Amino acid sequence: MKIGLLGFGTVGRGVYELTSSRQDMQVVRILCRRDLTLPDVLVTHDFQDILQDPTIDTVVEAIGGLHPAWEYVSAAIQAGKHVVTANKALVATYYDQLLPMTQEKGVFFRCTASVGGGIGWLSELERVRRCETVRQVGGIMNGTCNYILDAMTTRGLTYDDALAQAQTLGYAEADPTTDVDGFDTWHKLIVSANIAFGVSLETSQIPVSGIRRIQACDVQAFRERGLTCKLVSTARDVGGVFSAYVQPTLFPACEPEAIVPTNYNLITLVGNTSGRQSFLGQGAGRYPTAYNVVQDCVDFLRGQGFYGVYGPKVSVSNQEKLMYYVRGGSDAWLEDNVAQHWGSAVITRPVAVEQMHQWLREHPSVFLAALPEKR
Amino acid sequence: MKIGLLGFGTVGRGVYELTSSRQDMQVVRILCRRDLTLPDVLVTHDFQDILQDPTIDTVVEAIGGLHPAWEYVSAAIQAGKHVVTANKALVATYYDQLLPMTQEKGVFFRCTASVGGGIGWLSELERVRRCETVRQVGGIMNGTCNYILDAMTTRGLTYDDALAQAQTLGYAEADPTTDVDGFDTWHKLIVSANIAFGVSLETSQIPVSGIRRIQACDVQAFRERGLTCKLVSTARDVGGVFSAYVQPTLFPACEPEAIVPTNYNLITLVGNTSGRQSFLGQGAGRYPTAYNVVQDCVDFLRGQGFYGVYGPKVSVSNQEKLMYYVRGGSDAWLEDNVAQHWGSAVITRPVAVEQMHQWLREHPSVFLAALPEKR
Repeated sequence: MKIGLLGFGTVGRGVYELTSSRQDMQVVRILCRRDLTLPDVLVTHDFQDILQDPTIDTVVEAIGGLHPAWEYVSAAIQAGKHVVTANKALVATYYDQLLPMTQEKGVFFRCTASVGGGIGWLSELERVRRCETVRQVGGIMNGTCNYILDAMTTRGLTYDDALAQAQTLGYAEADPTTDVDGFDTWHKLIVSANIAFGVSLETSQIPVSGIRRIQACDVQAFRERGLTCKLVSTARDVGGVFSAYVQPTLFPACEPEAIVPTNYNLITLVGNTSGRQSFLGQGAGRYPTAYNVVQDCVDFLRGQGFYGVYGPKVSVSNQEKLMYYVRGGSDAWLEDNVAQHWGSAVITRPVAVEQMHQWLREHPSVFLAALPEKR
Repeated sequence: MKIGLLGFGTVGRGVYELTSSRQDMQVVRILCRRDLTLPDVLVTHDFQDILQDPTIDTVVEAIGGLHPAWEYVSAAIQAGKHVVTANKALVATYYDQLLPMTQEKGVFFRCTASVGGGIGWLSELERVRRCETVRQVGGIMNGTCNYILDAMTTRGLTYDDALAQAQTLGYAEADPTTDVDGFDTWHKLIVSANIAFGVSLETSQIPVSGIRRIQACDVQAFRERGLTCKLVSTARDVGGVFSAYVQPTLFPACEPEAIVPTNYNLITLVGNTSGRQSFLGQGAGRYPTAYNVVQDCVDFLRGQGFYGVYGPKVSVSNQEKLMYYVRGGSDAWLEDNVAQHWGSAVITRPVAVEQMHQWLREHPSVFLAALPEKR
């Protein structure tokens, strides 16, 4: 396998290093903006050098972002090259163009490292689907948010101090929007659910609410009641009715989610016969991510392309009812749905997830968190 | 695929049910002591009816125990039939006869359900080994022990009451020896380590110490210091030097092991590039176990036999040094190695795992637990 590598940052360099000792695959060209000299590889500033090299059968996209990553990936597919990426935003955003294009061109496509870093999460979904139906996927998919929430809960930090520490440690970007507003988790949920259920969820119907508005007083209120707040994604397939959402969620101490430490992920699937399986690991980092990119290349060598079928577009209906902790806003609708007061915050009666998030869009300064579901 | 199913208990019935709707495999004969009538399957009391049926290509062993399971499995292999089992005792005990025999006869052999029930643990080890070296495996592999320790820790039960509850709930056998003395964990560690490292560990050099001697006073001493006791297996490959042991181990609250609830398992691998990955799930039960048996059959249909190479016999050298909590016995050697006193118990200086377990064999009424390693 001859690989054209796009990007030579954290992940790209990792892929180069991990493949350098392998006999079955070889990075032969690298697209890199910087001037770079490597002993055994041609480094270029021009993507065409990779696209038009007929010896390159596989493109590994490690640039990140949507553009020009999407233009490069789609051009590579059109040129008949297999593609591996760790870019969850790209896969979630262009799913309905990407998958039909790979089918039409008969090329392989995998993105295992896009969810869970070094965890074999998407490949395990592929394995599970050989034998049973996946009923639910989701969990703690973003290490930055978990680090912040864990620091606030276990060490009593303010949100700002916890975020600053995460930035110092390299767990959070200078602009943390993608993480703290939940978009990273949202992308990972979309990729996971599409593969788990064999469909393409209508992404505009998947609400996301992050942790930017959480305050020490919220954490204190949760702690007094034995609850821990985590940013959690959930997607379910209940006999062809799909739900999917990302929101802060409270867990009692006995639930595994409650104690996921620092920047760890805990990603869970529920199969109809295998039951609940969770994967705990650090969902990012150079070598874990590069490792799963190499695993995808090994799958290509074994003739294994995408994880399953590219399924039809389906709508998402978040009619399941949850109780919510809501602080920082009120109106007649909320007053009508109050079940309890926790200090200045309220606990709602069970309300439909869709309705709660609709209300939240009109009250953007509110912090909310779903209460534990009865199990 | 035509399956001859040995046994129709918890797992056997599950395999029958899960395969009954599949087109690609079919249980055609069942060996069962009871008289049983099924619409589509011939039930027999005589193993020869399965062994001598040339249409049966695969034998699923779901009897449990060593005998006659081993005689049946080895006869099936000799007759050129593929074998799937969930029997960890059988695989761990006969590894060095079983694997060469399957190689010689060119038949497939898998045992995914033998460790972790419905968790794809052994199959993930197989996947990891395609791309990297596994440095460490182990964890909480026995739901019965975890239930007992969790009940003692979080609900303050005595050992006897916790065991009785586990028995009432069906998590523990009437004779709990295999679980509480650590042999179940020991078998699972041997199977996992052999597959993870591609070797055959010298099992006589793998010490095991269980939880039978733990008392409420021990749990109290741990709780006062923020520690939780779990029965844990550990196996490491440090550049070809192997260590492996099973022992009660203490974890601070920030470690994921500390909060594994009720009868859950938490099984971990450390890869040299992917880092730490842990699998959390209920490691037993009819459908989870039967599910992984069916997965093994699917792998056979895809031409995938055993997880990797059958490696050479290697000796185990537990020279790594740990500090231990020791209660219930003393002598000159222990006095010489005391670092601290915790009430009537002592904390040792770092001593070699091998040496500690040697001492324990001469003091069988002692309870010990390893202190957390510095990370």
